[in-house]
Amino acid sequence: MRIGAVEAGGTKFVCGIGNEFGSIEERISFPTEQPDVTLPKVIDFFKDKQVEAIGIGTFGPINIDRSSDQYGHVTTTPKPGWSGFDFLGTMKRAIDVPYGWDTDVNAAAYGESMWGAAQNLDSCVYYTIGTGIGAGVLAEGRLVHGLVHPEAGHIMVRKHPDDTFEGFCPYHGDCLEGVAAGPAIEKRWKQKAYELPEDHPAWQMEAYYISQAVISAILMLSPKKIILGGGVMKQQQLFPLIHEEVKKGLNGYVGADAVVKHIDQYIVPPGLGDNAGLCGALALGLAALSEHRDK
Amino acid sequence: MRIGAVEAGGTKFVCGIGNEFGSIEERISFPTEQPDVTLPKVIDFFKDKQVEAIGIGTFGPINIDRSSDQYGHVTTTPKPGWSGFDFLGTMKRAIDVPYGWDTDVNAAAYGESMWGAAQNLDSCVYYTIGTGIGAGVLAEGRLVHGLVHPEAGHIMVRKHPDDTFEGFCPYHGDCLEGVAAGPAIEKRWKQKAYELPEDHPAWQMEAYYISQAVISAILMLSPKKIILGGGVMKQQQLFPLIHEEVKKGLNGYVGADAVVKHIDQYIVPPGLGDNAGLCGALALGLAALSEHRDK
Repeated sequence: MRIGAVEAGGTKFVCGIGNEFGSIEERISFPTEQPDVTLPKVIDFFKDKQVEAIGIGTFGPINIDRSSDQYGHVTTTPKPGWSGFDFLGTMKRAIDVPYGWDTDVNAAAYGESMWGAAQNLDSCVYYTIGTGIGAGVLAEGRLVHGLVHPEAGHIMVRKHPDDTFEGFCPYHGDCLEGVAAGPAIEKRWKQKAYELPEDHPAWQMEAYYISQAVISAILMLSPKKIILGGGVMKQQQLFPLIHEEVKKGLNGYVGADAVVKHIDQYIVPPGLGDNAGLCGALALGLAALSEHRDK
Repeated sequence: MRIGAVEAGGTKFVCGIGNEFGSIEERISFPTEQPDVTLPKVIDFFKDKQVEAIGIGTFGPINIDRSSDQYGHVTTTPKPGWSGFDFLGTMKRAIDVPYGWDTDVNAAAYGESMWGAAQNLDSCVYYTIGTGIGAGVLAEGRLVHGLVHPEAGHIMVRKHPDDTFEGFCPYHGDCLEGVAAGPAIEKRWKQKAYELPEDHPAWQMEAYYISQAVISAILMLSPKKIILGGGVMKQQQLFPLIHEEVKKGLNGYVGADAVVKHIDQYIVPPGLGDNAGLCGALALGLAALSEHRDK
């Protein structure tokens, strides 16, 4: 099989060709500019590649309501040119194959459930913690949508007692993203996050905030695996700190072995590493093809 | 059709016989005692009723993992006699029909999606706010389970600036349940909740806490309807206060019309009123019968 995959991120696009085993055979990457610059590059890449379907996992928010005439559009984003842009329609008009369409984080959750850390599981939550914070949710074998899609990066958190940073979220100030995304770390400590030493108190504070996201996921969804990806999570020292904070926060209330005995195997980095997003888009493409054939 | 329904609550059991249209034809109710007193009453009620299936929506936590040899058991509860009790097995041995088995709140969410406030919707969250706080979750047309089931009553909340009550949750102190369930209101204000006048500041504080639960649900799950039931929500004056607090908390971030324009139709009381739990159990029974027939 030859399936196209588009990982449409806020700063860069990655396009690839993959197969049903989750392996990516060819890829290209370029910075995210205005859609009239970026989309032609995507279309050029796939034009002569004979793909059977294309999956798109994209930054959002996006319209995922198939009954809407805005289905496939990017909705409200401050990113110049993208607000209201008909992303999916533009692709369809250029390359006529079945399309999968979802958020980048839902795609990553799906990819991880096919070939990564949540393989063979029917539920997981995938958080990306980087420039922003978002989450994809797989529950009962399906990617979760509703009114819109999860926007779990903006949950309210309890402020760390030592934190005097007011938060940088333009909507909520000190929501999770406002105090725990990469820019928050840099603004708070006045230093690039990746330059802070491993034993810097920044990481304990970061773990405190991320643990609140994880605890919310456990209590609201009871997922079988929680995957933490994104730039900030390259700091491997965060994992044991988060494990400790989650156990402390739940305080024995959730008695499942996964939490009590094997938390280091429950809250984990992406099994697909930096390929989580692209493989996720590939998985969306595969699902679209299979849905198309069932019709 | 004749389907049995069991709403197993912490303080009382309700058993009923209903049909595929969600109407309950006959019912009985008695206090929840030890299982060896209570279950015989349930079994007696159904014994000669010729039901085709029985649905059970019960207080928890419970084992809902069909591959487990503890499936159908109540797990860890302080309720005398119930911890580890094989609820479903005891029923099955006495009356051999297909059984639906889930939490009381998942049942209520399901019932509301069949015949109540979330009719024809494939997602909703049902909160019960009473002696305790719990939530049932329907997403993508399915009741959500995972490691266990949602335990959304115990999410961390931000303390109201005027609240000096330390919370009563034995696990977390001032989690949502610890500060917003009925007993918290009574302990904080030293008065029965239902005796507090409608314009008492207790209700503004309560709305502040419940809005945090609702905001978490919106951001984590994006449900198409949020239903607030349980004893505390009999205080109808809470709804407009909650609507206001949710809008304030989200601050325009979720632009969906349901939130921005029609929040009074989005966050609502149970359409089935006090029958939400029993109708939910009925819906579980119907689903079990249909699953059995498909085999």
